[in-house]
Amino acid sequence: MIYNAPVKEIRFALNELAELPAICSLPGYEDCSVDLVDAILEEAAKFAEGVLAPINKQGDQGAKWHSDFSVTSAPGFKDAWLQYVEAGWPGLRAPADFGGQGMPALVALAAEEMWCSANLSFSLAPLLTLGAVEAINHHASEELKAVYLPKMSSGEWTGTMNLTEPQAGSDLAQVRSRAVPVGDGSYKVSGQKIFITWGEHDMADNIVHLVLARLPDAPAGVKGISLFIVPKFLVNEDGSLGARNDVRCVSLEHKLGIHGSPTAVMSFGDEGGAIGYLVGEANKGLAYMFTMMNHARLGVGVEGMAVSERAYQKAVEYARDRVQSRAVGSPDASGVAIIRHPDVRRMLMTIRAGVEAQRALACVAAAALDRASRHPVASEAASNQALVNFLIPIVKGWNTEEANSLTSLAVQVHGGMGFIEETGVAQYYRDARITAIYEGTTGIHGLDLIGRKTFSEGGATARALLEEAKLTAGKLAAAGFASFAANLEAAVADAGRCVDYILATFKEQPQLAAAGSVPFLKLMGIVLGGWQMGRAALIAQAKQGEDGADADFYTAKLATCRFYGEHYLPQVSGLAAAVVDGAGSVLDMPEALF
Amino acid sequence: MIYNAPVKEIRFALNELAELPAICSLPGYEDCSVDLVDAILEEAAKFAEGVLAPINKQGDQGAKWHSDFSVTSAPGFKDAWLQYVEAGWPGLRAPADFGGQGMPALVALAAEEMWCSANLSFSLAPLLTLGAVEAINHHASEELKAVYLPKMSSGEWTGTMNLTEPQAGSDLAQVRSRAVPVGDGSYKVSGQKIFITWGEHDMADNIVHLVLARLPDAPAGVKGISLFIVPKFLVNEDGSLGARNDVRCVSLEHKLGIHGSPTAVMSFGDEGGAIGYLVGEANKGLAYMFTMMNHARLGVGVEGMAVSERAYQKAVEYARDRVQSRAVGSPDASGVAIIRHPDVRRMLMTIRAGVEAQRALACVAAAALDRASRHPVASEAASNQALVNFLIPIVKGWNTEEANSLTSLAVQVHGGMGFIEETGVAQYYRDARITAIYEGTTGIHGLDLIGRKTFSEGGATARALLEEAKLTAGKLAAAGFASFAANLEAAVADAGRCVDYILATFKEQPQLAAAGSVPFLKLMGIVLGGWQMGRAALIAQAKQGEDGADADFYTAKLATCRFYGEHYLPQVSGLAAAVVDGAGSVLDMPEALF
Repeated sequence: MIYNAPVKEIRFALNELAELPAICSLPGYEDCSVDLVDAILEEAAKFAEGVLAPINKQGDQGAKWHSDFSVTSAPGFKDAWLQYVEAGWPGLRAPADFGGQGMPALVALAAEEMWCSANLSFSLAPLLTLGAVEAINHHASEELKAVYLPKMSSGEWTGTMNLTEPQAGSDLAQVRSRAVPVGDGSYKVSGQKIFITWGEHDMADNIVHLVLARLPDAPAGVKGISLFIVPKFLVNEDGSLGARNDVRCVSLEHKLGIHGSPTAVMSFGDEGGAIGYLVGEANKGLAYMFTMMNHARLGVGVEGMAVSERAYQKAVEYARDRVQSRAVGSPDASGVAIIRHPDVRRMLMTIRAGVEAQRALACVAAAALDRASRHPVASEAASNQALVNFLIPIVKGWNTEEANSLTSLAVQVHGGMGFIEETGVAQYYRDARITAIYEGTTGIHGLDLIGRKTFSEGGATARALLEEAKLTAGKLAAAGFASFAANLEAAVADAGRCVDYILATFKEQPQLAAAGSVPFLKLMGIVLGGWQMGRAALIAQAKQGEDGADADFYTAKLATCRFYGEHYLPQVSGLAAAVVDGAGSVLDMPEALF
Repeated sequence: MIYNAPVKEIRFALNELAELPAICSLPGYEDCSVDLVDAILEEAAKFAEGVLAPINKQGDQGAKWHSDFSVTSAPGFKDAWLQYVEAGWPGLRAPADFGGQGMPALVALAAEEMWCSANLSFSLAPLLTLGAVEAINHHASEELKAVYLPKMSSGEWTGTMNLTEPQAGSDLAQVRSRAVPVGDGSYKVSGQKIFITWGEHDMADNIVHLVLARLPDAPAGVKGISLFIVPKFLVNEDGSLGARNDVRCVSLEHKLGIHGSPTAVMSFGDEGGAIGYLVGEANKGLAYMFTMMNHARLGVGVEGMAVSERAYQKAVEYARDRVQSRAVGSPDASGVAIIRHPDVRRMLMTIRAGVEAQRALACVAAAALDRASRHPVASEAASNQALVNFLIPIVKGWNTEEANSLTSLAVQVHGGMGFIEETGVAQYYRDARITAIYEGTTGIHGLDLIGRKTFSEGGATARALLEEAKLTAGKLAAAGFASFAANLEAAVADAGRCVDYILATFKEQPQLAAAGSVPFLKLMGIVLGGWQMGRAALIAQAKQGEDGADADFYTAKLATCRFYGEHYLPQVSGLAAAVVDGAGSVLDMPEALF
């Protein structure tokens, strides 16, 4: 089950589309350079290919829960984690003040893609840890930072996010977990949390749980939720590990996929209360969680794309090896490799083009995240923040919805063998399925996109992006990409009609706007992915003729862009019709008649 | 995990759309009547709901292979099979001459939908058995029929189809299994077959394998394949069971889904040769298999639709029960059942509308199958056979491709719970995945559709069907369904352009036509499904006002048709663009650069 990190593709997305040189020049990123990033990519590729990919299939056997509440990680995972720590990867985007390298989000994303492609289950441990690091770094006291961040940045300890409770899925207003002040500045935390990724395992010395809970006098709803650090082992004054805290993993879920990632039911305070420490101010827990959500959601969008990439590689390998049936229209009855059958090529190109567009859009979003946090000009930072806000639900929602259909195509390329678990491609199909669900379902991101990200700002960012895409269409036309240009322009116009519709309906008839929210999210993904693929085509055309240019790379890039223009962009009109004309029929059915 | 057989919907599709009364009047179906079929549907619903559905989840634990080459069926399956036999269900569409009821394909299909919804894994045992019955009945000697058909029609024995070999997936020209005449009229069969559904189990006294193999002097390729009956136990003169034959199940596959259906690797002749009996003439095996393929493929199309129906029911149940988040736009912060969230409704309506259209199209195809085999006027029989030939790849391919996306939507409705195996909906997602693969992948049916079914007859049936759909669009416009009519007419026009393109390119540039074959198959599914939903809307409108009409049923039907018109039909233009404009970019990528 080989994985070849697509370093050239990643480099193209970073350097050409997301303008890495400009990101490296932002204040605080001075240590970053294109050369350094090249070296990081090469090393990350080696690690992903050599250490993480080989244990992905055995990871599917799953972690094991024991009746003493301990969890044994899937075979090979602990050793891989120790190597990951040894190599310093946990610190790549951790803050430099606490031992990390403080690399831009754009660079971290590139490495994360490789971890996710190689081994999605494994990749969640560092992803969650970094989320916890970010929340602590932004909001906790210096004292707490000093205790927790160095060991988390080094990977000696891992982190988790404890949000969901059985009665409260995405609706955090319903959180019931309690935290009672002890009097010494600490709290006793109690309650049950579910769906806790890497909530318990044996890979690291300690696990730092970030837990949403309510103080005794907290107001109801989301304004009464506070954020606490609850370590698995208490930490002594000298930094050594102390007593086991009153938190335990009471079971692991049996899931459709990502079996290598233990999904824990966590019980806090069964023996009187787990010792916890308040992060920042009381009742601001939800706001604190939101500060790291853009990163986390971008990360999940990358997960979806990365699993599709891995599935693509597997499907290509099979399609080259498997000989079956004569070539279409050939008088020669000999079988040919199925990669020669047009429909197999169509499936492979569909995955390939989707992945490239998704990667490009994710990289552009990551670069905007870096600019939003570091750009010295306030107005630039603000406009990039608006861009991030708009792009994140699209990258999260579109990439992951596509992951379901693209990994399904990879199964299909394998025919009957795709359905056999030993083949391995079914694992990607199962693993991918979670990505459109966790960190907010696509429906939740659709609502976010039409409400806070479109209506609330009068459609400004949406229109600015569509205008950019239209300009690119004009350049494509001038450069001879006539059909791509025409399809992009038509798609931009359709998307614009949808923006108009959302702005017109959202306030007075929000149900109508909401009915089309996910089709809108998807079509914006296709249009903005098309914008990036258009830019890619223009760059590839320009570079193709340069001395020493990688002719094969640009040939493939141009072919893939063309495919995107002819197979993806035309889907926009159908989705736009659903948004603009289809809301009534979403809402019409009397509830009792479903 | 409740299943409620949608008897009203099935009855509507049978009686109104597929014209059951006319089918009952065909020669040979005189015993059939609408009242009888009503009774059959009620009984089938009871059996599916009460016996098959309750063991579906435990069936996911799988059948067990033992080192003595025996297989223990999944828990509860043997008992359910005995009840199925006791109730006489195996005989529903088995020939009346051999103890069956000889019901029309249309009626059998209705019952089969319920078996498949209730328990897809179980349903494959009778489906495969009936396929074997049909092949034997059409092509074997009277002697062989007398030995095998009564016990297979009663369900005392089951049947299998042994086509695939490791080196020969769908390309049966590569079949290598051998059959050597013994001299007494029997043959010694040897070879290995894979992917044999219900190839070994403990539910019935005997298993009758139909095996494709080559005689010693057979020509190469598909013209040298013969069909043999190879029973697990030889049958004595008096009909009692004799010696164990030299055929064994050497392993079961570990699959993504349908775990309750044992998928066997079968080895014939390890101890000198399994005794087999030639069906019909030598070297005609492939042609004989084709006579039953339309039924089998229609059956798999029904499987896809039926699993989507079951997933729909599960999703509706969850969406009614699960309370989360305030209603969109509501000032009241209280959570509401998620069925009130527009995107959840959109997902439910998408599944519902897809299933209804697919069911309608499958029923129309089944009725054509009945007319083709029984219509007394030769020209009518012939035109219906052309209709069957054209519709079967669409019903098979479209329904099953949709099953992947519709069961995925049902998972999505469940949010995080959808990813947890105990919830049960993930099983439907996994089970459904095989349907677009076996009995020919969608790619194979796409090629069949554009070649033998479109180009070879100059597009006659395609155009006739599109003309019918256009007439329906006209009626819809006249009846006040303006937007449905406009969308259907536009979709018909797009489909017509695709037919023109295929006719223009297939002969000289078959690779171009093939590149769009699957998008063409899908768009024809959407258009013809739209034709049926348009007919349904017209009928519902007319019946709604009748005395004693089931107002709720027709209200729901009209709402679902409207949704189909606004959300499915607009997808056709994007698919048509891929067919007509997108072939070049499917073929352009140099093979080495994938």
